Amino acid sequence: METIAFIGLGVMGLPMAKNLVGAGHDVVGVNRSPARARLLAEQGGRSAATVADAVGQADVVITMLPDTPDVQDVVLGPGGVLENARSGALLIDASTIRPDASAAVADAAAAKGLDALDAPVSGGEAGAVAGTLSVMVGGSPAAFERALPILTAVGKTVVHVGPPGSGQTVKAANQLIVAGTLELLAEALVFLSAHGVDPAKATTVLAGGLAGSAVLDRKGPAMLDRAFEPGFRVDLHHKDMGIVTAAAREAGVAVPLGAAAAGLLGSLRAQGAGHLDHSALLLQVERLSGRENELSADE
Amino acid sequence: METIAFIGLGVMGLPMAKNLVGAGHDVVGVNRSPARARLLAEQGGRSAATVADAVGQADVVITMLPDTPDVQDVVLGPGGVLENARSGALLIDASTIRPDASAAVADAAAAKGLDALDAPVSGGEAGAVAGTLSVMVGGSPAAFERALPILTAVGKTVVHVGPPGSGQTVKAANQLIVAGTLELLAEALVFLSAHGVDPAKATTVLAGGLAGSAVLDRKGPAMLDRAFEPGFRVDLHHKDMGIVTAAAREAGVAVPLGAAAAGLLGSLRAQGAGHLDHSALLLQVERLSGRENELSADE
Amino acid sequence: METIAFIGLGVMGLPMAKNLVGAGHDVVGVNRSPARARLLAEQGGRSAATVADAVGQADVVITMLPDTPDVQDVVLGPGGVLENARSGALLIDASTIRPDASAAVADAAAAKGLDALDAPVSGGEAGAVAGTLSVMVGGSPAAFERALPILTAVGKTVVHVGPPGSGQTVKAANQLIVAGTLELLAEALVFLSAHGVDPAKATTVLAGGLAGSAVLDRKGPAMLDRAFEPGFRVDLHHKDMGIVTAAAREAGVAVPLGAAAAGLLGSLRAQGAGHLDHSALLLQVERLSGRENELSADE
Amino acid sequence: METIAFIGLGVMGLPMAKNLVGAGHDVVGVNRSPARARLLAEQGGRSAATVADAVGQADVVITMLPDTPDVQDVVLGPGGVLENARSGALLIDASTIRPDASAAVADAAAAKGLDALDAPVSGGEAGAVAGTLSVMVGGSPAAFERALPILTAVGKTVVHVGPPGSGQTVKAANQLIVAGTLELLAEALVFLSAHGVDPAKATTVLAGGLAGSAVLDRKGPAMLDRAFEPGFRVDLHHKDMGIVTAAAREAGVAVPLGAAAAGLLGSLRAQGAGHLDHSALLLQVERLSGRENELSADE
Repeated sequence: METIAFIGLGVMGLPMAKNLVGAGHDVVGVNRSPARARLLAEQGGRSAATVADAVGQADVVITMLPDTPDVQDVVLGPGGVLENARSGALLIDASTIRPDASAAVADAAAAKGLDALDAPVSGGEAGAVAGTLSVMVGGSPAAFERALPILTAVGKTVVHVGPPGSGQTVKAANQLIVAGTLELLAEALVFLSAHGVDPAKATTVLAGGLAGSAVLDRKGPAMLDRAFEPGFRVDLHHKDMGIVTAAAREAGVAVPLGAAAAGLLGSLRAQGAGHLDHSALLLQVERLSGRENELSADE
Repeated sequence: METIAFIGLGVMGLPMAKNLVGAGHDVVGVNRSPARARLLAEQGGRSAATVADAVGQADVVITMLPDTPDVQDVVLGPGGVLENARSGALLIDASTIRPDASAAVADAAAAKGLDALDAPVSGGEAGAVAGTLSVMVGGSPAAFERALPILTAVGKTVVHVGPPGSGQTVKAANQLIVAGTLELLAEALVFLSAHGVDPAKATTVLAGGLAGSAVLDRKGPAMLDRAFEPGFRVDLHHKDMGIVTAAAREAGVAVPLGAAAAGLLGSLRAQGAGHLDHSALLLQVERLSGRENELSADE
Repeated sequence: METIAFIGLGVMGLPMAKNLVGAGHDVVGVNRSPARARLLAEQGGRSAATVADAVGQADVVITMLPDTPDVQDVVLGPGGVLENARSGALLIDASTIRPDASAAVADAAAAKGLDALDAPVSGGEAGAVAGTLSVMVGGSPAAFERALPILTAVGKTVVHVGPPGSGQTVKAANQLIVAGTLELLAEALVFLSAHGVDPAKATTVLAGGLAGSAVLDRKGPAMLDRAFEPGFRVDLHHKDMGIVTAAAREAGVAVPLGAAAAGLLGSLRAQGAGHLDHSALLLQVERLSGRENELSADE
Repeated sequence: METIAFIGLGVMGLPMAKNLVGAGHDVVGVNRSPARARLLAEQGGRSAATVADAVGQADVVITMLPDTPDVQDVVLGPGGVLENARSGALLIDASTIRPDASAAVADAAAAKGLDALDAPVSGGEAGAVAGTLSVMVGGSPAAFERALPILTAVGKTVVHVGPPGSGQTVKAANQLIVAGTLELLAEALVFLSAHGVDPAKATTVLAGGLAGSAVLDRKGPAMLDRAFEPGFRVDLHHKDMGIVTAAAREAGVAVPLGAAAAGLLGSLRAQGAGHLDHSALLLQVERLSGRENELSADE
């Protein structure tokens, strides 16, 4: 059993923290809005009023925050994690942020003698609740070994992919593929419907062949049912595609489909759909095709 | 047992015909180069010298040909299937051709009192050999019912998706998704490698999440090993993307990612890679990124 | 003075025919809807009831028709130009059609001992009225020499660009550049407006530098005034982009921006804007940016 | 006559400073490598060893620097412009940088009671030498009035486009259009050549119609002659497209062609062509089409 400070108890963070409680850890939660921390306390965890309180007593500090500046504030800022962490504490950042920002956090931690891992996750709220997330871990092998028993409480696939920042790089690649695959599926469904083919029937055969994917299995039904409540919001995927395209540009890597998918997600958001699930790329393709609301599972 | 004329004994056609023999049918093969027909005869089938010979004695005629004009020649042309088919014969075209051409073939067949199905397949040579193809069938329900026992000898997933041409439409959607997913995977792998992350390790965790796909499972290893012998040739996928983009244009469906993937496949082919497997889209991304031959499974 | 049969007296054809009358030629007009031929007759030309009537008395036959099948019908079909042309007559097709179709028309004419030129034009209705069109001529040098005095009555820039079909190839390149430049201008204007910069002021400085273009000069005001009556219809430019992308595909030429512009024009048309001027690409960019009706010259 | 500190005497800055000397101003130049300042001194200007020296005696301070961080350093940093500017001095930044960075510079200047303008230019080295640049000015109307007599010594078209940062926004729009137009021209030339049409002849007719542009006039000959020495380097245009795509993303503006052109420029640079003129986009299209070195003005 370790004492774990868990900072950021949102849609993903709270169920992850609960799973750590369930694995027998002493979890001290802290959240901007304290109601979420009380929810954790009701489930066998504890709540702290400030980051300093939580971090000061922890063996391991896990952060799960929306964006790069949040992590920089909470970890590097005054009253933050680095100021308050005990000697020997391990930092695990599960947020999805820029790879270079993760590497900088690890450098800052190392300057204080602390190990830090970037450990972004994939699998959504359902995976967080079920404890079946995929976790992509960047950092030293030793820090990974130490973190593994903790991470296996929240994820099913936990892989060490390289030095600090590497976890974020893999997460960026993940988001690139997912955005593009969602868009391809949306294009295919509108294409089928426009040619008079029942997209629901068609997906049964598509799913069995080389066109099959987790996106088709998990997001295809949402598109066919026009059920676009998140899930994973367009806003967040848009943020992630900003990370992807910036990192690709920096490295001089050509990502023509990734860039086009990023543009379409950005356009969807600009049209007011930022709060919908990213499977709402279907709406974008329908609009571009002059076929709003045409697709339906019953047609 | 039915007597089946099988026209077109290429990489896909010959193993499909063998599986029909194995299922107890009397299969009469015919092929432009007769050596392939002899291979079938050695495995329990029979060979015919001409389309007329084969078709004249058949209950069912299956065509498996490279492109639209081939099907139009062999089915509609002089000495072809329609001229020689017996009353009550069923036509099954397993080729991947234009949906409107399939619909026209069905119309021409109906004018002679014959049923015709378009039944393109997905799954590659491996699926053809193993009899595990996905088969997308367009045509009348009655014709589909009659064909089902035959098609289950060559495929595992056999789905009736709509009227004549619908099978081709679904195959086109399949090829759109597959081309795009291959390109996304290639972009992700070069992105990972450029950022110093081992793409082989990364794919283990990508495969477990929402980025997972049949393309990643089956074509990822080929990309990592730089093993680009076909498989499914760039030339053929390029042909299919011509069908996709023309059909999308005709229906006014926006397929921005599909069109971009089509352009990249066409460019890959223009650079001399038409004979390689379509997973060679990796080479295109590497070249565009100034990183030829950089990716390797060992790095 | 030559006797010229002029077939197709639409928005472009009628003013071109009038300019030929003005240059002293004997022009016999024929049009599907005869009212247009009467308009020509009122201006010093003559009208004929059928293609055969007009062609049978002509030294030169000019066709100005909407699309490839129209030209094939009128020139190659029964009762058409080739059946009725006098020995030694010169054929000039000013329509914008597929380069390979123009080459085939020239071959068919040559088989009858006739010279044929493809001579598509650029410059719009205004250029047709003013006689200042650009004319891109494909065919033999001798035929071009013979046609030059006639073509200079309708155009200011008349250039022989190569063998039969070459005129169409250059016109296709023209349409590729124009579609893309319109889209770039639309993107720039919405970008400026979104950042609070008056697009009208901005265009005055853009026009003076490397961003200056005929599109900016002639179509910029229409975009700023949201005046989208044609002009040149989206429907027609969409047709032309089909020629461009097909010809690029056939030759294995990469046209990523051309293909993207074609897709955006197609999408604009699918949304019901086919009847607007192609400068309506502004509407497409506004929609994609969630900024409908935002741009205005006064803001 | 005003005393002008001119900081940054590169390819653009030196001839601009010389034109200010020619207009009768007292110009004190300063440059990282002092040899360039000596060149100015030889032509009637003066040279200073440090920014502080130059700025301390100036009525007007002009900066012409490569990128955003350079301007931030030189203007905002220790020993920089703001620390040393006299009361009432006017700052004019002619560099091409991020619009938000220009706005922040103006805010910082205002906090010291100083006026600042962003005044990026278009027209290249030739325009700088000839004093015919286009200048896009953002800032207060009063500051613009004061700057106008100075700016007319370096530019022919000097337009006030809005508040601080607006000049950069218009420059970004300029670079978006120019990059896209270069790529469209490259696509058109390779398309023409692939179809056997002499691109040099074709451009004479294209230039006269709606496809005509400053890019075609000034960069077309370079493409036809394969003369890719800069001019304006791919590296710099790549930097500018980073500004464009980031500003578009921030405002939620869809720039599909701009983004695609940015990707192609980035790819060209990744392949080692960063030092060439941006007209080298021709090489990118040739490579993508498998037609290296095919285009020539003589063919």
